[in-house]
Amino acid sequence: MKQYPEADISSAVDLALACALLQRTQTGDLTHCPLMLSPAIITNLLITQLESLAQPLALLIHRVANDLDFLVEQLQFTAASDEYTGFLLSLAQEQRRQDSLRFSLTRSDYFMTQTDGLRQVEFNTIAASYIGLSEKITEFHKIWGNLQKETWDLLPNQPIAAVADAFVTVMKEYNVLNACVLFVVQANERNVFDQRLLEIALIERGIKVVRASLEAIGEQGEVRQGHLLLNGEIAAITYFRAGYRPDELESKIARQGRQLIARSTTVSVPDLPTHLAGTKKIQQVLTNPQLLKLFLDEEDIAIVRTAFAQIYTLDVQIKFEGKMMLAKEAAILQPEQFVLKPQREGGGFNLYGEDLRQCLQNLPAEAGNAYILMERLYPPVSPGWGLRDGKLWQGQVVHEIGQYGILIAHGDRILTNQAAGYLVRTKLGEMNEGGISAGYGHLNSLVKSNT
Amino acid sequence: MKQYPEADISSAVDLALACALLQRTQTGDLTHCPLMLSPAIITNLLITQLESLAQPLALLIHRVANDLDFLVEQLQFTAASDEYTGFLLSLAQEQRRQDSLRFSLTRSDYFMTQTDGLRQVEFNTIAASYIGLSEKITEFHKIWGNLQKETWDLLPNQPIAAVADAFVTVMKEYNVLNACVLFVVQANERNVFDQRLLEIALIERGIKVVRASLEAIGEQGEVRQGHLLLNGEIAAITYFRAGYRPDELESKIARQGRQLIARSTTVSVPDLPTHLAGTKKIQQVLTNPQLLKLFLDEEDIAIVRTAFAQIYTLDVQIKFEGKMMLAKEAAILQPEQFVLKPQREGGGFNLYGEDLRQCLQNLPAEAGNAYILMERLYPPVSPGWGLRDGKLWQGQVVHEIGQYGILIAHGDRILTNQAAGYLVRTKLGEMNEGGISAGYGHLNSLVKSNT
Repeated sequence: MKQYPEADISSAVDLALACALLQRTQTGDLTHCPLMLSPAIITNLLITQLESLAQPLALLIHRVANDLDFLVEQLQFTAASDEYTGFLLSLAQEQRRQDSLRFSLTRSDYFMTQTDGLRQVEFNTIAASYIGLSEKITEFHKIWGNLQKETWDLLPNQPIAAVADAFVTVMKEYNVLNACVLFVVQANERNVFDQRLLEIALIERGIKVVRASLEAIGEQGEVRQGHLLLNGEIAAITYFRAGYRPDELESKIARQGRQLIARSTTVSVPDLPTHLAGTKKIQQVLTNPQLLKLFLDEEDIAIVRTAFAQIYTLDVQIKFEGKMMLAKEAAILQPEQFVLKPQREGGGFNLYGEDLRQCLQNLPAEAGNAYILMERLYPPVSPGWGLRDGKLWQGQVVHEIGQYGILIAHGDRILTNQAAGYLVRTKLGEMNEGGISAGYGHLNSLVKSNT
Repeated sequence: MKQYPEADISSAVDLALACALLQRTQTGDLTHCPLMLSPAIITNLLITQLESLAQPLALLIHRVANDLDFLVEQLQFTAASDEYTGFLLSLAQEQRRQDSLRFSLTRSDYFMTQTDGLRQVEFNTIAASYIGLSEKITEFHKIWGNLQKETWDLLPNQPIAAVADAFVTVMKEYNVLNACVLFVVQANERNVFDQRLLEIALIERGIKVVRASLEAIGEQGEVRQGHLLLNGEIAAITYFRAGYRPDELESKIARQGRQLIARSTTVSVPDLPTHLAGTKKIQQVLTNPQLLKLFLDEEDIAIVRTAFAQIYTLDVQIKFEGKMMLAKEAAILQPEQFVLKPQREGGGFNLYGEDLRQCLQNLPAEAGNAYILMERLYPPVSPGWGLRDGKLWQGQVVHEIGQYGILIAHGDRILTNQAAGYLVRTKLGEMNEGGISAGYGHLNSLVKSNT
């Protein structure tokens, strides 16, 4: 393994900080983001697959979001067992504006597999984070590679300007003088600099950003002549960097904030149908090729299916180890081959291994609709070295690759559908999960392989 | 006075941090640099004066540094009473290489006066700091001005690229393959990000930077075939960000480090004659027009003298309040009209008011050579608001303006003599010195006045 002298570690930390790779600690202090000193290697084949997936996947989610009846049908059982999804779905049903302006900032996350190319982990339609810091980590790797005399061929990564330009386009479409962009944020956000980097790019384009929590919007917001107003300022765009966890919508005042946004003409990033189209349940439903035909042509179906993992409802019959059985039974039998996920959006609530087995064994039948089972992906591990809290660690790592997408549409008319840079989060491989930094995603970049 | 809502203060801190306006606290934690939210206003007349001064002043110091006999003559008494200056002067006398490569990064500091334009406070020839952060503060003010809908016409400020390009030029002149740039640094440097920003620009230009203390150079450095080597790497350029305070050269090993640098062919930024030409004593001597004629033509003399303040040795007869008396006596009589400064380089050791009077009254005659008296400048105060430790303060402030200069020369042949951006440090005016942030320079930018 590579050895770094102490001075190099100190340099790496300082240079990362000078690249604005900053976050706050739980106590509000400043520290550098966890990051890798060894970029992830990607083959040309996977780059081609990544690029081919961006537009068809965005188109799929856009069309699913345009079909509210489909969303209602597919999510009705989820909504019945998950109050958060139920709230969002009923709010979405209030708003059947076909001519509305849509602005989606998404991130499709993949694992590399040993043999089957990229496999989609999830499609994030709300609060897709690291648009700012992912650009900065690639800037850092350029500097770090030069310093270490590496010959890395870094895959270019500049989402900030592309996303900021998209805000400008949408502001023009909304066409109200002196309107601002509202960032819906969580209190005590540790990843605030990621958001500030985008804010700076917006300010540079003459766009004012106002930051507020759902609670503050609920208290101080109002809808006037259709516009969302906060302290007298019209929010042309309301960009969610919060509101994706059920607990964020528990208070009455937060729900009022969420409702105000939905009931105004502000361009909500995402709008409710797009938010709901990003749920795990919809991801699972769309693994059915017959349903895919409702939204994509044959060519695009073939493309998106190259990256689809196997996803099941708990009560579906599957062929497993030569026998037909319920997916739930298969997962109890071999939990290491599955991941149990809540049907709504958002990672971090997944169950694996023995936890998964125990959950399924104790799950009341009526709660089954709140979960889906996904084949567990074991991406290839490779040696890597990372920095966290100023300390170097080394180990076998896996990479999760996210690709940002920008979609702007007016009803069915699509103005923009483009990829906009990428995010790599690198973690210690499963076998090392008890070790240092386990579970912590470390920011990373992609380097093209020579082969 | 301007009022900012709490959210704006929080934004200002975050945006400043995202602009890399970082420093370390005494305990090593990260914080934002003290900075002003209100830029300094400068008239076109003063901009013209500032621009006119850069080249003649750099030329003056260059020619003084080329005249070692002059330096020895003028500094002999200072050297006798100040051991640090004595050490540097005797080291300089060892090295009489007329063909050597000179690379100076200087900063000429001025106060604006009420009526007489800019007045030079000092000419820094060693470790002129804030080349990195001064560019970043102007980036910040551009963003902050946009956010606050200010119509500031900011004076452009991009020293980093100009200075980094100068390093490239000098590396080519030195012409040794795989050589590095050595940054001579202090342990526990709080202003490390200022240095790192320049380092990043050098790395981007393919130049490797090695950081070491004078002690480490003394221990691990060696001179081989004239080259300075540190851990096997040739230092083409040795850039001092340390070594300007007497206490830094107290240890034998630090002196050995300083000597190794001087006795090698490494391009020392600054070289010893340039370092010595930046002493207060030389600044005082050069207020004599007869001596100026040794180095500059009439035209340049007229230009530099527009900015020269009155500076005296303690034992010179001056006309003061209608009577002839020693400068020392005048200062004891009216201490508020003078500043007492050590004759060597570097601010921060100056005495004012009652401290000045008591020092002069108790000063042994033979120690008088270690000091000079300078007329005290009272720059105009204006309202300002600044940020320190995340807190906003408001008060009457004064601005000190520094202009960076790059000079590259081979013997008498000057390859580059150019200005390269500016630094503004803003402090609370003297009357408020007991208050918050007294004595703390806050980073600032210049805005052109409309008049």
